[in-house]
Amino acid sequence: MKRRSFLNTIAATALAAGGMTATGAIAQDQSYTIGVAIPSATHGFMGGLNFHAQDTIKRLEATYPQLTFVLATAGDAGTMVNDIEDMVATRNIDALVVLPFESAPLTSPVQAVADAGIWVTVVDRGLSVEGIEDLYVAGDNTGFGRVAGEYFAETLSEGDKIVVLRGIPTTLDNERVDAFSAAIEGSGVEVLDMQHGNWNRDDAFNVMQDYLSRFPEIDAVWAADDDMAIGALEAIAQAGRSEEMWVVGGAGMKEIIARMMENDPQLPVNVTYPPAQISTAIELTALGLVSSTPVSGRFIIGSQLITPENAEQFYFPDSPF
Amino acid sequence: MKRRSFLNTIAATALAAGGMTATGAIAQDQSYTIGVAIPSATHGFMGGLNFHAQDTIKRLEATYPQLTFVLATAGDAGTMVNDIEDMVATRNIDALVVLPFESAPLTSPVQAVADAGIWVTVVDRGLSVEGIEDLYVAGDNTGFGRVAGEYFAETLSEGDKIVVLRGIPTTLDNERVDAFSAAIEGSGVEVLDMQHGNWNRDDAFNVMQDYLSRFPEIDAVWAADDDMAIGALEAIAQAGRSEEMWVVGGAGMKEIIARMMENDPQLPVNVTYPPAQISTAIELTALGLVSSTPVSGRFIIGSQLITPENAEQFYFPDSPF
Repeated sequence: MKRRSFLNTIAATALAAGGMTATGAIAQDQSYTIGVAIPSATHGFMGGLNFHAQDTIKRLEATYPQLTFVLATAGDAGTMVNDIEDMVATRNIDALVVLPFESAPLTSPVQAVADAGIWVTVVDRGLSVEGIEDLYVAGDNTGFGRVAGEYFAETLSEGDKIVVLRGIPTTLDNERVDAFSAAIEGSGVEVLDMQHGNWNRDDAFNVMQDYLSRFPEIDAVWAADDDMAIGALEAIAQAGRSEEMWVVGGAGMKEIIARMMENDPQLPVNVTYPPAQISTAIELTALGLVSSTPVSGRFIIGSQLITPENAEQFYFPDSPF
Repeated sequence: MKRRSFLNTIAATALAAGGMTATGAIAQDQSYTIGVAIPSATHGFMGGLNFHAQDTIKRLEATYPQLTFVLATAGDAGTMVNDIEDMVATRNIDALVVLPFESAPLTSPVQAVADAGIWVTVVDRGLSVEGIEDLYVAGDNTGFGRVAGEYFAETLSEGDKIVVLRGIPTTLDNERVDAFSAAIEGSGVEVLDMQHGNWNRDDAFNVMQDYLSRFPEIDAVWAADDDMAIGALEAIAQAGRSEEMWVVGGAGMKEIIARMMENDPQLPVNVTYPPAQISTAIELTALGLVSSTPVSGRFIIGSQLITPENAEQFYFPDSPF
């Protein structure tokens, strides 16, 4: 178990304040620097994540003047490692929030940060070794598949036919698809096929074209990702079959949410896998510094169903995603 | 999936603000009421929980003037149900944070709150039906046993002898003890006996007296709870064997932490199971109202090892626990 030097400092301050509660003393007396290391905005989801990171840092700097943030975005793992080493060496960070570009190359450098007594929060992609981070924040892949599957099971009738677009073959994709399959089990809904569209618009377009040529009846599509949903919708439109089937994507892309707010019949629902999970991670890390609230542990952010009625709450006009 | 009317309101406000981010708009424009329903301070842990609830409400009211809190403490399940119904009927709460007095009698009333479109955060003790709450916050029972077991395995030598005091026979107690047993497996440490002290000082005193009369050599005691640790220490003192063995309790009771800060050799470490988890629950619920940060899901607060070196950060002089 590592000792967190900054927390010792907090406690000493609190005790020095005598009768004050730890919380009261902490909020006033100390200032802290939080390093945030994330991948750069190379694609839609990561663009959203960058937006939410900046937005949350702005909110927290206004709420807690004693907090300073260092945000670094990296286009590759090596740059991210350098960014983190720089945060420790020159900015003397008290806590690090990191979404590892890749698990393996970031594991040792982040371990070194933890060993230096600095709080570590890991987001989304885990490290290769368990137990390094103080706090882990991630989306819920099982819930992501289950919530979608429940909607298909409740909305479709026995004998209705669907096709599925899978992501890049990964454990993550398996978790999602297994949960989806479990949720529709017993509903009588027939899955015509499940092929990998690799979370890619063009791949999804091609897979969907193939489905459309092979299956004369398709009632619904689980595209499992909004980039794949865009690709699938284009293939469906080109085939002139837009009125035949609806499509459920995932992750709440801005364009998709906007169409849902206008009650587009092709897009009845969506499922969250929020890029704003970076906000949860940064907020909890900040809370651990400005208060004595326990924030170590594991926070799995629930996947929620987005409907036309609640779509506004998931619409971020300024976000690129 | 329930629609959260208050979140719709937030979104509408954010959108009305035009170019502003949702976050910016929310923090300024709306005021909210959060109901907090917890058991009254009938014993040590719950006393600490009451203290941290009040402390956090004070902190949040100072940080976010737009938030109002209604705190109700109940000595039985019926009173808690009435408190909650009253919060909805007369205080028009936007969110409820509840530590159910008992799971079964609170399930329907809390379901009714969720059905009314009010955000629900459940703490520590789950409800009898899954999926009612938007956010679940609880301690980590597996970690609680594992962290203690790892300390025993690392500190003791092959052939050393220990005794264990178990809690009230429950799933929770099984989880803790199983994880402890797994962590010491292969260490060569001999467990002489494991009897139930029922998280009770007097029961633990009696069980420990029995152990002391039966076993001529005991190197360490896993009391697994600070109330039981107090009872065990008293029995050990009366037997004049205080220098023979050390004791590890759990949950970070104030008296125990104070003795650790003075390097009491009988109390080398402790393991957190923080009553301040109520603070985490209230803070996240508040954050969901004042920002667009995702806070639905499941947060399991890690069990941390307390040592003499970091004990101050777990010492709350004003708390009764």
